[in-house]
Amino acid sequence: MSVENNDHHYAASSSIAGQPFNLGAKTIALAVRQNTDGIAEPVQTLIDFLHHLGHTVVFETETAAHLTFPGVPAMTPAEIGEAADCAIVMGGDGTMLGIARQMAPYDVPLIGINQGRLGFMTDIPLERMLPVLAEILSGRFKAERRTLLEGSVLRDGKSIHVGLAVNDVVVSRGAGAGMAELRVDVDGHFMYNQRSDGLIIATPTGSTAYALSAGGPLLHPTLGGIVLVPIAPHALSNRPIVLPDSSQIVVEIVRGRDISVNFDMQTFASLAQQDRILIRRSPHAITFLHPQRWSYYHTLREKLHWNEYPSSDGKLT
Amino acid sequence: MSVENNDHHYAASSSIAGQPFNLGAKTIALAVRQNTDGIAEPVQTLIDFLHHLGHTVVFETETAAHLTFPGVPAMTPAEIGEAADCAIVMGGDGTMLGIARQMAPYDVPLIGINQGRLGFMTDIPLERMLPVLAEILSGRFKAERRTLLEGSVLRDGKSIHVGLAVNDVVVSRGAGAGMAELRVDVDGHFMYNQRSDGLIIATPTGSTAYALSAGGPLLHPTLGGIVLVPIAPHALSNRPIVLPDSSQIVVEIVRGRDISVNFDMQTFASLAQQDRILIRRSPHAITFLHPQRWSYYHTLREKLHWNEYPSSDGKLT
Amino acid sequence: MSVENNDHHYAASSSIAGQPFNLGAKTIALAVRQNTDGIAEPVQTLIDFLHHLGHTVVFETETAAHLTFPGVPAMTPAEIGEAADCAIVMGGDGTMLGIARQMAPYDVPLIGINQGRLGFMTDIPLERMLPVLAEILSGRFKAERRTLLEGSVLRDGKSIHVGLAVNDVVVSRGAGAGMAELRVDVDGHFMYNQRSDGLIIATPTGSTAYALSAGGPLLHPTLGGIVLVPIAPHALSNRPIVLPDSSQIVVEIVRGRDISVNFDMQTFASLAQQDRILIRRSPHAITFLHPQRWSYYHTLREKLHWNEYPSSDGKLT
Amino acid sequence: MSVENNDHHYAASSSIAGQPFNLGAKTIALAVRQNTDGIAEPVQTLIDFLHHLGHTVVFETETAAHLTFPGVPAMTPAEIGEAADCAIVMGGDGTMLGIARQMAPYDVPLIGINQGRLGFMTDIPLERMLPVLAEILSGRFKAERRTLLEGSVLRDGKSIHVGLAVNDVVVSRGAGAGMAELRVDVDGHFMYNQRSDGLIIATPTGSTAYALSAGGPLLHPTLGGIVLVPIAPHALSNRPIVLPDSSQIVVEIVRGRDISVNFDMQTFASLAQQDRILIRRSPHAITFLHPQRWSYYHTLREKLHWNEYPSSDGKLT
Repeated sequence: MSVENNDHHYAASSSIAGQPFNLGAKTIALAVRQNTDGIAEPVQTLIDFLHHLGHTVVFETETAAHLTFPGVPAMTPAEIGEAADCAIVMGGDGTMLGIARQMAPYDVPLIGINQGRLGFMTDIPLERMLPVLAEILSGRFKAERRTLLEGSVLRDGKSIHVGLAVNDVVVSRGAGAGMAELRVDVDGHFMYNQRSDGLIIATPTGSTAYALSAGGPLLHPTLGGIVLVPIAPHALSNRPIVLPDSSQIVVEIVRGRDISVNFDMQTFASLAQQDRILIRRSPHAITFLHPQRWSYYHTLREKLHWNEYPSSDGKLT
Repeated sequence: MSVENNDHHYAASSSIAGQPFNLGAKTIALAVRQNTDGIAEPVQTLIDFLHHLGHTVVFETETAAHLTFPGVPAMTPAEIGEAADCAIVMGGDGTMLGIARQMAPYDVPLIGINQGRLGFMTDIPLERMLPVLAEILSGRFKAERRTLLEGSVLRDGKSIHVGLAVNDVVVSRGAGAGMAELRVDVDGHFMYNQRSDGLIIATPTGSTAYALSAGGPLLHPTLGGIVLVPIAPHALSNRPIVLPDSSQIVVEIVRGRDISVNFDMQTFASLAQQDRILIRRSPHAITFLHPQRWSYYHTLREKLHWNEYPSSDGKLT
Repeated sequence: MSVENNDHHYAASSSIAGQPFNLGAKTIALAVRQNTDGIAEPVQTLIDFLHHLGHTVVFETETAAHLTFPGVPAMTPAEIGEAADCAIVMGGDGTMLGIARQMAPYDVPLIGINQGRLGFMTDIPLERMLPVLAEILSGRFKAERRTLLEGSVLRDGKSIHVGLAVNDVVVSRGAGAGMAELRVDVDGHFMYNQRSDGLIIATPTGSTAYALSAGGPLLHPTLGGIVLVPIAPHALSNRPIVLPDSSQIVVEIVRGRDISVNFDMQTFASLAQQDRILIRRSPHAITFLHPQRWSYYHTLREKLHWNEYPSSDGKLT
Repeated sequence: MSVENNDHHYAASSSIAGQPFNLGAKTIALAVRQNTDGIAEPVQTLIDFLHHLGHTVVFETETAAHLTFPGVPAMTPAEIGEAADCAIVMGGDGTMLGIARQMAPYDVPLIGINQGRLGFMTDIPLERMLPVLAEILSGRFKAERRTLLEGSVLRDGKSIHVGLAVNDVVVSRGAGAGMAELRVDVDGHFMYNQRSDGLIIATPTGSTAYALSAGGPLLHPTLGGIVLVPIAPHALSNRPIVLPDSSQIVVEIVRGRDISVNFDMQTFASLAQQDRILIRRSPHAITFLHPQRWSYYHTLREKLHWNEYPSSDGKLT
């Protein structure tokens, strides 16, 4: 499915981002985490199940490089974007992150299956995948849109690197270097010079990842926001700040050695002084399909242990 | 100026929230902080200046109770809402907060003059008020909209108190009581039970006030967001969370003695268990008029000492 | 056992705070949390077990008020201090906290049994209490000393209240009041004026309780330290500070309504401006007896979920 | 002055670390920050002043490499340790840090002069250096001891690097690497596996530097403590922990690429998995000489802006 060319036929009852969702036989891409013991069996089970329902299954290229099943051809992300109705990711949030960034330009809806540990993005437990997928593929799902960031590294006015991030763009210093000094401008307005280990610019999706570790707030996925979280800032008042996601954020390297920029942990290193990184919301977005009873807060409670309420301990008396 | 009845005549070049701003002779309400030494003289100067420009000046009721000037009548907020083109507040952010809450239903644009210390909302220094006001009143300004929260205390299904907040709605325990246990639901979805000293629900405006002290992030005023900041939460993972400002937030008192709810520090006390507070964005908003060179980030830098860049100290070298 | 009068006979192999621990027949005080469903049976089991080992069992006064067993007399804390070799507390950390504060002047070693949920101070699970107690009572234990704080409220130079705290002394404002302004002096040196919701002065024991929720660090029990943790301080740089436990800390109420001081959540309310609270390490200390394999870090890992190591999630890729 | 060979003659009235302080003609080492515009003139003034008082002045080696004055010979740290009664450092805290680490084995008392900006360790303003030095050199001072850390990198059981730190030992990942996983043991007890950007192990002196930026507490210099501050830890409950400074801390590299260890920002890179860093209090310590009216809290107030008390702003009303 391509965002430019939506000539598929859909059944009427469900929709994703305003488009009806194909309720008949579908082409389904499958991406599976590498180096995962015992994954072959559930993958076989899943493929058999999907075939049994009349769907066509294809492997995403990297998956095809480590898994081979008869009758399951490999496709590049672009081919998947053209041909697939949705993609199923088996693995953890890290696997999903990589696939989501590749699939973003094509807006193929993504379904995440985790292997024993609930993920923020891989919310379907492996042992319940069949009934849940049956439900989703029949059109009963919650579709959830997530924004992405795009970043462009500018040197002497020219873009020397571009990147896409589902979670975050991180500008940070090397381990052996002194503090970085970064100048931040937003929509043409000077915000501050910041001395720190670096700066995280995160989407709502990324707000539960590295940004959270560095002291950032949670952002609800439907908030049109981007959060800037300084990493170990020199000034104690350099607190996280949430901007509207229409913001054009420019981070300039004022001072510092060994500075690099990461897009979802994919590194572009060797930034020089006066290099600038322009960060803004990507025109692309990704769509997750969740079971209908899925709840964002449920996931937060599970992942952040919010659901544990001791009836007696030292704080309560 | 009333939001329901905009029959004033405006000059064409400026506008506030889409309405043209009256560039001719205006009625200007004046609110001045009480118990402020030496305030009489600058108030006289200001009134003379406004009269000289051909404007009509009125005192807001509480100001009239402690200040008397010939030819300056008192008006209630409702009367000001009906008659005034804008209101000038002399004092600190606290004074502005009180006036803004009263004026919110009428959407009278607000101009803030501080007495020696830059405020987040009172951004014009007293010593520069005349040229800056001349500029603003002639239509050269930045108009900035700020959202408000409204809260309703529900007991046995009935609303027993309603409040309006420019900064925040705070549900918190008494000093001598044990932890509060609060249940939070958002848009009908259960978020969490939280044990803490309380919960701050803040607007972007309030994000630089109490919410910041309690560990919350800064929210840009143009972000359509509301932040929930727990105060000293028992669970370390109960981090601040930013929700879209379309959210319906319900806080229920699960357990705790001596719980009260505050709207911008105005207290409604004596909450009982099972009481619920429904919080959402108010249909009202307030408009600040700033000088054209005003910058939100400049204010942040000043107030949070972001603009101090030591060239040498123990952390850098 | 009294700290003034140690005329008991001890066996040689174990010692507490430098004193040998009585390895023969002992007098053991028992304190049990009130309102605990199903507690009668394990209490009976415990008493039978202790009697069987030849020990004498007595109830602490409050326990005796809600539990009655034949042959188990009630004793006041002072009587327990005089007669008992150790005290066993069944309940949560809250129950232990209350007993520890009462027993502190007599330095009776304390053993904590929890009911299903590990406590920081009640570290022996109910279902394993018999073998663990057998081990401890035979002299195989880790003895751990914990410091206490004492606080004195001074008005017009006279002490109007004194309190003892195992966890913390907390000076804080009422829910409906504005910020408190507190002046802090340490060892006669002015530290700061602080505007906040209040100030927590905590022992290492208390560092895992309220102080932790308010952003304080953990203090190892063997650290000779006291931590000051401001609650929601106005100044972002008012960070927790750890002082040597020889410090004399004076907190003066500079401004604020409805200020109270709590000693382990026991409230002394109605502080007035200019009241001062003098806080220092108590000459008393408490001793916990743990099983020999007990580890402070193990408890931290359990209580703070440090022991959960996902192999794959969104942060790691 | 050497710690091994204290055969100097001292006057009786003052003492440092229990030793009397030489009140007569002294040998004074001078260390000056490089690349500092306009430093030659105050250095000349200082040397003339010290000569005038009858003291001998020598340059520390690195200073001699960029400054030359007639009659001021160069000395290595070891020679200074042998011959000098004290060392004066002109520069910022960074300059002091470097000198202090070099001088630590010899325990030469250090006096810090800053150039316009108060430092935590360089507390005497340049413009007041003459009267303050006259006071200190005549024996009227506060001597303050600061502990140091020593760290040893162990690979396959052998020490491959040793380092000394006034502020902190930092184990951290490279900018382009994923999270580090570190195992921490204290005094032979397993504390935790931690996933983070790294771990700061700081002295009280270092608690106001990088550790503070990463969320650590302040430690009073007289506290016998060491603080462990995780940098952006994955687990939100991995809070800073303060240990007694008698602790033997072992940090093992469990997983991670590009991990390095820094001693006061001096890097030893290329740590491999299973490498362990053993950190403990150094047998050396440093001594700062402050003017008699010096106050640690005054420095904190100045550096952390604790001394600013707005009388009116948005939080107070």
